[in-house]
Amino acid sequence: MTAPFRGAWCVLRPGDVSVAHAHHEHEIFIGMTGSAKVVTGEQRHEFTAGDLVFLKPEIEHYLVNDNDEDFAYYAIWWDRAMSDEFVAHEIDRAESHD
Amino acid sequence: MTAPFRGAWCVLRPGDVSVAHAHHEHEIFIGMTGSAKVVTGEQRHEFTAGDLVFLKPEIEHYLVNDNDEDFAYYAIWWDRAMSDEFVAHEIDRAESHD
Repeated sequence: MTAPFRGAWCVLRPGDVSVAHAHHEHEIFIGMTGSAKVVTGEQRHEFTAGDLVFLKPEIEHYLVNDNDEDFAYYAIWWDRAMSDEFVAHEIDRAESHD
Repeated sequence: MTAPFRGAWCVLRPGDVSVAHAHHEHEIFIGMTGSAKVVTGEQRHEFTAGDLVFLKPEIEHYLVNDNDEDFAYYAIWWDRAMSDEFVAHEIDRAESHD
């Protein structure tokens, strides 16, 4: 698969707290099962299966699973370099079809 | 949100069959709840919550919910034009920070 983004399944066990971090990539989280909190600065946001969370670049964030079941989500992040690489790949693909 | 892809929540009710189609975009489906079949040409693939399906450009495909509960999935698709647009937006954003 060639894509202008990267993705990963993530699971937080009950009580898990992810490490606070910030990064230059844009990011979305898609809530799969369970629920958790997304913490950005002073704000705590409820995050439940079916919710979509969007994080702008450089926003420090972490997740807390303060429930008694696993919280699973799919994370997708992207930046300009991934798009540049994808476009180069698409140009190659178009040329190889000529 | 600016991103080099587009996305949509999709739900198939029990018995629903989506219309077969093909498109130039690359696509992934992320299974959220329930299960269904993905049909591509002669092949039927089991597709259950938690599965990730990747469809190459121009592959004709449709989905069948042959179960008695809703099947929900998140679809993401992308092409070169979306990356070009995203890169242009990132260049503007970098310049506005100068």
